[in-house]
Amino acid sequence: LVKREVVRVVTPGMIVEDELLDARANNFVLAFSRHQQVTGLASLDISTGTFRLTETADVAAIVDEMMRVAPREILMPVSLEEDAAFTVLRDNPLNFAITVLEDATFEWGAGRQRLMDQFETLSLEGFGCESMKAGIGAAGALVHYVTETQRQKLEHLHGIQTYFLGAFLVVDDQSCRNLELLRSIRTGGRQGTLLDILDQTVTAMGGRLMAQWLRYPMLDAARIQRRYAAVAEGVERMQARKDLRQALKSVRDLERLGSKIAMGHGNARDLTALKLSIRALKAVFAALTELTSDHYACHEDTRPLDELADLIDQAIREDAPPVTSEGGMICTGYNDELDELIRISQDGKGWLAELEAKERSTTGINSLKVRFNKVFGYYIEIPRAHSESVPDHYVRKQTLVNAERYITDDLKHFESRVLNAEDQRASLELRLFIEVRDQAKARHAKVQAIARFIARVDCLVAFAEVAHNNGYCQPQINSEGVLDIQEGRHPVVEKLITGERFVPNSILLDNQANQVLIITGPNMAGKSTVLRQVALITIMAQMGSFVPAASANIALTDRIFTRVGALDNLSAGQSTFMVEMQETANIVNNATANSLVILDEIGRGTSTYDGLSIAWAVAEHLHDLNGNGTRTLFATHYHELTELAEQLERVKNYNIAVKEWNDEIIFLRKLVAGGTNRSYGIQVARLAGIPESVIRRSKKILAQIESGAHPQVGEKKPTRSGGKKGDGHVQLGLFSPVERKVVE
Amino acid sequence: LVKREVVRVVTPGMIVEDELLDARANNFVLAFSRHQQVTGLASLDISTGTFRLTETADVAAIVDEMMRVAPREILMPVSLEEDAAFTVLRDNPLNFAITVLEDATFEWGAGRQRLMDQFETLSLEGFGCESMKAGIGAAGALVHYVTETQRQKLEHLHGIQTYFLGAFLVVDDQSCRNLELLRSIRTGGRQGTLLDILDQTVTAMGGRLMAQWLRYPMLDAARIQRRYAAVAEGVERMQARKDLRQALKSVRDLERLGSKIAMGHGNARDLTALKLSIRALKAVFAALTELTSDHYACHEDTRPLDELADLIDQAIREDAPPVTSEGGMICTGYNDELDELIRISQDGKGWLAELEAKERSTTGINSLKVRFNKVFGYYIEIPRAHSESVPDHYVRKQTLVNAERYITDDLKHFESRVLNAEDQRASLELRLFIEVRDQAKARHAKVQAIARFIARVDCLVAFAEVAHNNGYCQPQINSEGVLDIQEGRHPVVEKLITGERFVPNSILLDNQANQVLIITGPNMAGKSTVLRQVALITIMAQMGSFVPAASANIALTDRIFTRVGALDNLSAGQSTFMVEMQETANIVNNATANSLVILDEIGRGTSTYDGLSIAWAVAEHLHDLNGNGTRTLFATHYHELTELAEQLERVKNYNIAVKEWNDEIIFLRKLVAGGTNRSYGIQVARLAGIPESVIRRSKKILAQIESGAHPQVGEKKPTRSGGKKGDGHVQLGLFSPVERKVVE
Repeated sequence: LVKREVVRVVTPGMIVEDELLDARANNFVLAFSRHQQVTGLASLDISTGTFRLTETADVAAIVDEMMRVAPREILMPVSLEEDAAFTVLRDNPLNFAITVLEDATFEWGAGRQRLMDQFETLSLEGFGCESMKAGIGAAGALVHYVTETQRQKLEHLHGIQTYFLGAFLVVDDQSCRNLELLRSIRTGGRQGTLLDILDQTVTAMGGRLMAQWLRYPMLDAARIQRRYAAVAEGVERMQARKDLRQALKSVRDLERLGSKIAMGHGNARDLTALKLSIRALKAVFAALTELTSDHYACHEDTRPLDELADLIDQAIREDAPPVTSEGGMICTGYNDELDELIRISQDGKGWLAELEAKERSTTGINSLKVRFNKVFGYYIEIPRAHSESVPDHYVRKQTLVNAERYITDDLKHFESRVLNAEDQRASLELRLFIEVRDQAKARHAKVQAIARFIARVDCLVAFAEVAHNNGYCQPQINSEGVLDIQEGRHPVVEKLITGERFVPNSILLDNQANQVLIITGPNMAGKSTVLRQVALITIMAQMGSFVPAASANIALTDRIFTRVGALDNLSAGQSTFMVEMQETANIVNNATANSLVILDEIGRGTSTYDGLSIAWAVAEHLHDLNGNGTRTLFATHYHELTELAEQLERVKNYNIAVKEWNDEIIFLRKLVAGGTNRSYGIQVARLAGIPESVIRRSKKILAQIESGAHPQVGEKKPTRSGGKKGDGHVQLGLFSPVERKVVE
Repeated sequence: LVKREVVRVVTPGMIVEDELLDARANNFVLAFSRHQQVTGLASLDISTGTFRLTETADVAAIVDEMMRVAPREILMPVSLEEDAAFTVLRDNPLNFAITVLEDATFEWGAGRQRLMDQFETLSLEGFGCESMKAGIGAAGALVHYVTETQRQKLEHLHGIQTYFLGAFLVVDDQSCRNLELLRSIRTGGRQGTLLDILDQTVTAMGGRLMAQWLRYPMLDAARIQRRYAAVAEGVERMQARKDLRQALKSVRDLERLGSKIAMGHGNARDLTALKLSIRALKAVFAALTELTSDHYACHEDTRPLDELADLIDQAIREDAPPVTSEGGMICTGYNDELDELIRISQDGKGWLAELEAKERSTTGINSLKVRFNKVFGYYIEIPRAHSESVPDHYVRKQTLVNAERYITDDLKHFESRVLNAEDQRASLELRLFIEVRDQAKARHAKVQAIARFIARVDCLVAFAEVAHNNGYCQPQINSEGVLDIQEGRHPVVEKLITGERFVPNSILLDNQANQVLIITGPNMAGKSTVLRQVALITIMAQMGSFVPAASANIALTDRIFTRVGALDNLSAGQSTFMVEMQETANIVNNATANSLVILDEIGRGTSTYDGLSIAWAVAEHLHDLNGNGTRTLFATHYHELTELAEQLERVKNYNIAVKEWNDEIIFLRKLVAGGTNRSYGIQVARLAGIPESVIRRSKKILAQIESGAHPQVGEKKPTRSGGKKGDGHVQLGLFSPVERKVVE
């Protein structure tokens, strides 16, 4: 009997099987830990060997970072389980598994030792995290957990990457959703997202890196410029780009292949995939010689990999089966002993034919057959009619309706020999296969380094491809707070609309006269699109991508805040308006002079006067923030807010132009200076399919309100008992006489 | 070499493996087809054998029904691919696979023949669908597709269930999401949904049926009352209910087990699970004898299943391995030939010990061992030191560092015998296993019938359990349009809130004086909760469940419409307001006198006057609908709508009471008669974390607006260059003097 032992424990973060993983997404397990006032966070994707660590005293930033990493599994110390800062984990918006471990697992000293053992170093200086006690605690817990669940040392973890949250443009989780960076709000899918537009990578590791770049746009102008240089060259050198992308297509998922092999999970097909990928690198490097930017230069010696590919080529059959226990993996000519065993099993066939001929002639029975089946092994079958002529040394084993089956000593000896040879062959093949796989394992660090280089190249040429295909421009970057986009477009919407041309819009924000833009205009005119395209263009520019505009000068931005739309959170007891106000509070409390704030309507979820008052006060607050204000785009249906421009020096009014034509409106989708007081809500209602009778009635009511009268139901049609008497009700503000003038 | 043939094709709808299925959800593949003006729809869950068909001339209803079925895979004829009615499939909100097939596959005649062949009947009369050509086309395509992909006849499909869309309360997909019936809006998970509250079933098939009941609440008062009777008995007979639920817990997923076995995928463990479930039925039926309602009476003869359980018990070992090819499945004593084969392999062990003793004594080598390994088979191992004493008839096979391994003729003969016996054993066990499985297969229709009975019983006692634990009452049902809920609660929110007591609310809707209720009141007071609980209580009552209320008289309702919250659909070019208006248009165009309409704010996404005019006109329209009006709950922040109650005879005002206390508000969460004009938006903003300075400023602005003045920035603090000059801007309505009086 075979004893079944637990070989490894599979938790959501511990998956390495290709079929269960999304090729274009990382599969992170994350740990966090606290040391004094500092919280550390580490994340590890064992399927690729990506291992990162950071820490900060700002707990909110840690929670944001967790959302950004989007792990499948989170490890936390038991003492933080009740910590108010992490209650958001209980809501579990991303549906990760949470594993709570003893505090001791996150202890700094033991963690440091564990990391040094893992990396085989004498300190963590080389990784830039020696002094980061909270981060080391988290990373140490990860290594401990993974080693325990995998029941093996992780030979493919050679180091850890230290990063600092302040080095990136922060787009909080809510804004990431609002802007549809990674997932469509409606479908939850990838279509209709910025990632979908930008990710024209052709390798799996490139795809994963692109998603990471999107979540970590840079703040360092020099690093951004280096990417621009590479993208610009890619745009210009069209043939080189084409060749390069063609070559990259043949490179498989080196990162995951490498990790799988290093962890001893790889089969013969994985080795072949590794070989073919290494072979494909030749064409990649050839194409790269045409390009001169820093980012296209590879400083790795690839010869050890070529040797490895040669070895795999000699040893491993390309048609090997997926299992490693049944043979059929090793090439003929690679090992003499193996060739001999194969010869024995195959010769058997000839020997059997000979035996059949011989037995036929000795017995004189021409219908005698020598055959094999799984149950009885080899046997001689003789039709019942000839039973009398069967020699005495034949031993009867089975009786069929029309025949009898026999064995002989010769046949039994032969059977042992063949069956043994087959067993030995399988066992020898496994040994040889493991030898070759160990060779691949030994070169794992090299595979990893090349994989990362390839991923970066793939992303940069994808940027170039997107820029070329969609007519993007190379942005400028400034630290003076000027955001000047000429003829900007929404990168996603411009691809999705069909039939009509996307109308570009220019926008200027600065810290002088154009700091807060109040944008009014009718529904459906495209206010939201303009707002979001400004945020998306900023993110793209800081990722190092070209942008959909005629020209763009982008202010380095530390955070992007958005307040757009809102979802009820009824079961948590929060109303729409509460959610709206919480998002607004987050902005008001955390925006800095270098942030970009996008407000798409606030104050809608409450009564008109309350909402207007709050919207007004928030606009003032952002204008006056820390004495400098913050760059803000504020779309609103409260036309009253346009008065702010008269009273505050850094506020400007804009509206989105429409043309009225008979009773219809034509959307020009063009942002123009000045306010407006028309929303055309009733016209939009008609477009949405509200019946004509309701539309006519709405217009009548609107006219009545505008003239200061109360709408009268009686005017329309008599109800069964006519109007009831007023019951001492409120005299309402909106029905007081108003005066309305239209600009333009 | 073993040839690998395609045995079956697995598409998302074709999964039968337990690990890949959600035990509590059906896994449907759906097909639709058109015949003249009628569209037919059929759905099949091959993992349970559930097969249903319907048809209608109303294409929108078909699309709604697709969403309700929520299939994993959809089959459609190529000719409908471009049909405007089905463009929603391209958005693919539920992420199903779509397979487009030739129109011929959906042809009525061939489909009918295929169904008759499948069910072994001479017509489809018995299934009530003989004349439903479109539906038969769809069902026929399904059978064709499944047979092709599974490469076998589906022996567990014995019939098809015909249903009519008009027989159920329709809750469209959008409302199903808004009301969080099956999935939480925020997390997409099950927590916080009505299903989560109601589904206290203890069997997998009960869980699936509960989800179906939730999507198909009934319209037939008699059928609803039958369920009430069963639930009432379950509530009353506490001990019987407890015993029954306890007994049901031991019944496994009979429906899927049965199907799996019938399709030839079941292993020995599945047979054991089937046996244990059949045995568990005894206790279930014993507990059922205590209950007398119709629904608790089983009209199936269960003796054939008891016989089957006995057979499985005699034949199949409970510790059988999951694979069927390696033996270890069949009990000792079940088959003589098998017992003999097992004896041979086991005797071998004794023989080997004897051989070892014998060879030790003949050779005089005490360290001689007889052993077995996979590669070499049986061998004799002798330490190198004794090589000299090895007899001549020992044949050397392998040399180790310290020992040599030999074989002898005796040992080889023995090996053949044992190995053969083991192979024969495995093969014989497989044959015996299949015989037993075929017996189970033959009783599949019976298993299916019992499974369905069990599912229904499980759901009914779950209703009783929920009713008892949560203090629900048995509703009355009426066709007079009276919806009278006394002290109703929100079934989900009452379980989720902690710390405070859930405040019940009474509501009366009818077709006389209380047809349209305008509900005003501050944010956060609980308007949305009240609105939704009315819809949920109606759905529960029509499912046959008791409801969270002191008493309830429920008007049979044909459709529930909701307009609550809104999600942007920016990438499809639709603004928030557009989505809001489309949902409103759907209601206005489709509501009937027997519908229930829930409007939670409309007109928010546009300017105040436009929004108010539309809201007013829609309220009037619903009041006047087809001369009768429709039952409507309308929550709004437009306090002006309370004037409708003075002018229209079937409109009433309600508000949700709050108490002011100093500058704070206390939410009483009680619905009271009359309107209000206070929204307390600024107080809510403070609760949300808006800084005190912004709150103070908002209040000042509010006071200014209410007194008719324009807010003045200058009052707050001087800006760098002071106020700018007005540039001939609009004089805005909201800043005209208003008069405000508060009721109460």
